Amino acid sequence: MDLPDRVHVDEVLPRDGLQRLDEVVPTPKKVALVDDLVATGLQSVEVTAFSHPDVVPNLRDAGDLFTALDRRSGVEYHALVPNRVGAERAVTAGVDGIDALVTVSDAYARQNQGMTAAENLDALDAILDVADDAGIPVEAGLATSFFCPYEGPVDPERTLDVAERAVAAGVDAVSFSATAGMADPCKVADLLSRADERLGLDAVDAGLHLHDTNGLALANAVTAMREGVRRFDAAVCGLGGGIVFPAGLDTVGNVPTEDIVAACEAMGVETGVDLDALLELARQVRTDLGVEPWSHALAGGTPAGMLAATGGPGPDG
Amino acid sequence: MDLPDRVHVDEVLPRDGLQRLDEVVPTPKKVALVDDLVATGLQSVEVTAFSHPDVVPNLRDAGDLFTALDRRSGVEYHALVPNRVGAERAVTAGVDGIDALVTVSDAYARQNQGMTAAENLDALDAILDVADDAGIPVEAGLATSFFCPYEGPVDPERTLDVAERAVAAGVDAVSFSATAGMADPCKVADLLSRADERLGLDAVDAGLHLHDTNGLALANAVTAMREGVRRFDAAVCGLGGGIVFPAGLDTVGNVPTEDIVAACEAMGVETGVDLDALLELARQVRTDLGVEPWSHALAGGTPAGMLAATGGPGPDG
Repeated sequence: MDLPDRVHVDEVLPRDGLQRLDEVVPTPKKVALVDDLVATGLQSVEVTAFSHPDVVPNLRDAGDLFTALDRRSGVEYHALVPNRVGAERAVTAGVDGIDALVTVSDAYARQNQGMTAAENLDALDAILDVADDAGIPVEAGLATSFFCPYEGPVDPERTLDVAERAVAAGVDAVSFSATAGMADPCKVADLLSRADERLGLDAVDAGLHLHDTNGLALANAVTAMREGVRRFDAAVCGLGGGIVFPAGLDTVGNVPTEDIVAACEAMGVETGVDLDALLELARQVRTDLGVEPWSHALAGGTPAGMLAATGGPGPDG
Repeated sequence: MDLPDRVHVDEVLPRDGLQRLDEVVPTPKKVALVDDLVATGLQSVEVTAFSHPDVVPNLRDAGDLFTALDRRSGVEYHALVPNRVGAERAVTAGVDGIDALVTVSDAYARQNQGMTAAENLDALDAILDVADDAGIPVEAGLATSFFCPYEGPVDPERTLDVAERAVAAGVDAVSFSATAGMADPCKVADLLSRADERLGLDAVDAGLHLHDTNGLALANAVTAMREGVRRFDAAVCGLGGGIVFPAGLDTVGNVPTEDIVAACEAMGVETGVDLDALLELARQVRTDLGVEPWSHALAGGTPAGMLAATGGPGPDG
């Protein structure tokens, strides 16, 4: 199977994973978490979001958190930004990069950001103004690239219209987000093939942000790798999900970092991440945050985990 | 993406799912379960195993169960068989087909069946003798086709040696089993490509039996569909796993039928199964058996489930 030799995993637990939690995690604990994540070999972390503090109270310490980070060289500490004010705060805080939230579906933009999709594109222009002045790279994270939790399926050409508009506005990279976790390998291959035709996958440094509501996130990741995509967001313990999603829908989380890293390891695709260290951290996160992750690797579902459980090698091994 | 128009889902809950349960399910309840499964559109059910009653006590009622079944025309009611005695019992019970258990790994054959892999092939010959006399088709289910829980990775050429031997002995079909749930898309594509070269995938009516220990079962299924495989085992609620596997390894179950059916529906691949009816049955199974399935569709992870949870269509929908 034709897969990339290496993929880049961008860890989004501190932003996407924590934003939905009932309890607010104290800043020093977030600092330690980011450092622990980087210690496993992850080279890129979405540390927080510069959202309105009333809208996402769990991330209201975004500026303080960046100030308190113990940064390592070679690691990219970036943040989600929804609008100009957020961009200004992010630049002041010294982010390495901005992930501009650009929602394709109008209904989701209204629910999640209190603006229309058209207003969201205006906000992108404003974010780019601020980022360009500061010399900070911007990735457009295209929310609801496949499916809107309020409208249903999203036309891929609509998604690509938005992507094209973002590229024309000057973003450095594009990431297609399965916000609702309802993508499937056919839709992923179709969108990526259309994106390659209209924009060039390499030209826009295409990435994927995969939620796993339908259980197809890893299938989607493998499909995308076969199409040549080499950048994937993921969250330790698979935490995450839109702040406006109803509680109780436990599977809306991101693809677990430990599962995608384990899958890559099985398939001979390098990630630079130490799986054992990552699993140890995932166990710690599970305990610290009191969560019950839908994470196969964490549940023992790795070759090493299974051999340990059976006591293998067996009688002949 | 090039996928089959239609795939055949073989439901294995009554055998693979029930064999590991702590409590024994009474025969009339099994009869009702099989009937409920068939009512959702499933056209093939692995009803039980004709194993030694001391080894798999939960399935000791195999003969009585077959007698009590209310069979519908067009549906294949078949059973797993480990040896000649099992085949004789299965024929007497009137099975439509025999799934001969043929284990590739020596260590697993010893642990699971108390015989060597070589003795297992002799047992296959004996099963075929009995089945041929009765005019009943036999599928070889190749356990540990990818990974042995006691030995680790299994050489694909070793798996194909066993498959070739089974075909030479006269089996009508071959199913490759990810018994340990440690297959990945690369290994699946590699094994299937080698199998096509050595045996012909269509010639052996190749199928897959996918456990989901590592979370890649759906990715493996999609990969296999792209290679032209059209037969997949699955279990409602994703129950299942080898009887010798340690307790507590919750993810060793089969790919959930509701998840593979939902995935097929999303991708436009027909299964003939009514997803709504299947989900209703899965909810009932969850309650009746008191299990907590790792099943995304059952947790609400379908387009309909998500729109119901959000109350969508939203303000603009």
